[in-house]
Amino acid sequence: MERDGAGGAAQRAGRRSAAGGARPALAIDVGGTKLAAATVEPGGRLIARRQVPTPGDLDSEGLWRTLDALVQRLLDAAGVAAPDELAGVGAGCGGPMQWPAGVVSPLNIPVWRSFPLRERLQERFGGIPVRVHNDAICVVAGEHWRGAGRGRGNVLGMVVSTGVGGGLILDSRVISGASGNAGHIGHVVVEPVGGPLCSCGARGCLEAIARGPALVAWAQRAGWRQGQPDATAKDLADDGAQGHPVGVAAMRRAGRALGIAIASAAYLCDLEVVSIGGGLSQAGQILFDPLEETLHAHAKLAFVRDLTVVPAALGQNAGLVGAAALIFAADRYWTGD
Amino acid sequence: MERDGAGGAAQRAGRRSAAGGARPALAIDVGGTKLAAATVEPGGRLIARRQVPTPGDLDSEGLWRTLDALVQRLLDAAGVAAPDELAGVGAGCGGPMQWPAGVVSPLNIPVWRSFPLRERLQERFGGIPVRVHNDAICVVAGEHWRGAGRGRGNVLGMVVSTGVGGGLILDSRVISGASGNAGHIGHVVVEPVGGPLCSCGARGCLEAIARGPALVAWAQRAGWRQGQPDATAKDLADDGAQGHPVGVAAMRRAGRALGIAIASAAYLCDLEVVSIGGGLSQAGQILFDPLEETLHAHAKLAFVRDLTVVPAALGQNAGLVGAAALIFAADRYWTGD
Repeated sequence: MERDGAGGAAQRAGRRSAAGGARPALAIDVGGTKLAAATVEPGGRLIARRQVPTPGDLDSEGLWRTLDALVQRLLDAAGVAAPDELAGVGAGCGGPMQWPAGVVSPLNIPVWRSFPLRERLQERFGGIPVRVHNDAICVVAGEHWRGAGRGRGNVLGMVVSTGVGGGLILDSRVISGASGNAGHIGHVVVEPVGGPLCSCGARGCLEAIARGPALVAWAQRAGWRQGQPDATAKDLADDGAQGHPVGVAAMRRAGRALGIAIASAAYLCDLEVVSIGGGLSQAGQILFDPLEETLHAHAKLAFVRDLTVVPAALGQNAGLVGAAALIFAADRYWTGD
Repeated sequence: MERDGAGGAAQRAGRRSAAGGARPALAIDVGGTKLAAATVEPGGRLIARRQVPTPGDLDSEGLWRTLDALVQRLLDAAGVAAPDELAGVGAGCGGPMQWPAGVVSPLNIPVWRSFPLRERLQERFGGIPVRVHNDAICVVAGEHWRGAGRGRGNVLGMVVSTGVGGGLILDSRVISGASGNAGHIGHVVVEPVGGPLCSCGARGCLEAIARGPALVAWAQRAGWRQGQPDATAKDLADDGAQGHPVGVAAMRRAGRALGIAIASAAYLCDLEVVSIGGGLSQAGQILFDPLEETLHAHAKLAFVRDLTVVPAALGQNAGLVGAAALIFAADRYWTGD
């Protein structure tokens, strides 16, 4: 009864006041590696945050219960007792998904196929806005709202890690596209003749060259750490930074592919800033030098010449901040129903 | 005095009634080949239209006077006696330009360098909205408003002719980008290794391969109509359609380059429709078959698989219709000031 009563409202007002005067959003980030959730202030600051590794041994409902329990522990810790103490729920999830329905089939979460994430969250949090978008779109929304793209109107936010993803802000709004998949820079063609086969079935996609596991496989074929199945792209970048020629060559290979794709995107979208996050973005100059060199060899006209490529500013929290932006700045970051 | 008097208003009301009950827009299309102007109904239908070849022997002011005289003849014929009988003036002009200021330096009009087209039109038509955008953006606005992209939210409109240009509609709005240059698909990279040099200074741009004069030069090097300096891309397409092997090979070369660039754009922007206009789009199946084959070899994921590539519907008038859309449907097609 408290939920609808005046006493409850007064109590909630008290809690809201304690939390800074306005209701927080619940932000959720569902990925193949981890599940994360946070309460986020209207200004974009994370209040409380929890995460767990994404379980690989559960069925569809088991995974949902894991997420639900994570969220409940977060809300308990944050003192949120009822859905209407929240401004809304924003969630980023790996694609593909039916959007804006939020029916998700994340590539890296095999047990969720056509899982109705948005509907389940709506049942769980009745009466407040619940919005689900692709995780890479949440990342660019976060970077634009409160990170490296702040104050700029035209931003590509990339994540270069086990895959290569991205999201677009154009004319100061998030771009969803026909099916909520805009920003898929990982499948821009960078080596049309003789390029490596991509998991999508085509040849020469950026992702087929620049994703971490592809770089590791390429380097191992070239003699680097052969017979070490656990070697990672981080190892490869570290070895390159210390002068290992195959590590240097692998980062040059990734940087060139990124530079070509970014030049194409800059022309097509008239970009101001590209932010790059994800593990590989930590590789530093041995990645960014060949990237910039290739970008500027292609981006010659005046309007793309000054494009800035910067590391993402929000790190692992970009997706959570962007998920909150779907609630707090929906006019710019949410184009669905 | 008539302009502000009640009698004048009554007269104008009479003219408006005769013209369909609402004020038309003046639409202008400034290109390297022709200058065109039309009065356009609020629904997008052209009422009256005039064009002249773009003079190549005049200075900057001479060219402006030619445009001004063309417009005056049109307005006289349409019975428009004063600016406030128009809903506004929309103009498309070849790029590059400073946008939204409308200070234009069209590549194909050497005497206009930093020419203040928007300001001059504002002086000429005081008191009504005057808006200037890139011609390729006007084309996609026209095709989306009243042509091949009607009713679709995510459209790339291309013009393949002496250059290769384009414009984007995403999430049902025209995309301008940081400098009004979004949609420049002509410089998407399609042959990064060993590709031909483009007029922009880079190698492997779509335009360097698929623009008409580049195809003609390529074909002549392969033995087609050598020593005929006036041979055109239309001749090449016609010869190909009749089975000339170099003509067929040239159209295949263009089709493949277009297919790669369109696949990259489809992934990046999550497109539903690509409309292709301009002279080369008349080449038919010897161009579109290799285009579709290459597109589908790269566009494999479900969300891009059903992309439709269609001929533009409005032909030579797309830019004029789109220029009118800057006035009549500004909420979707005008993002400037």
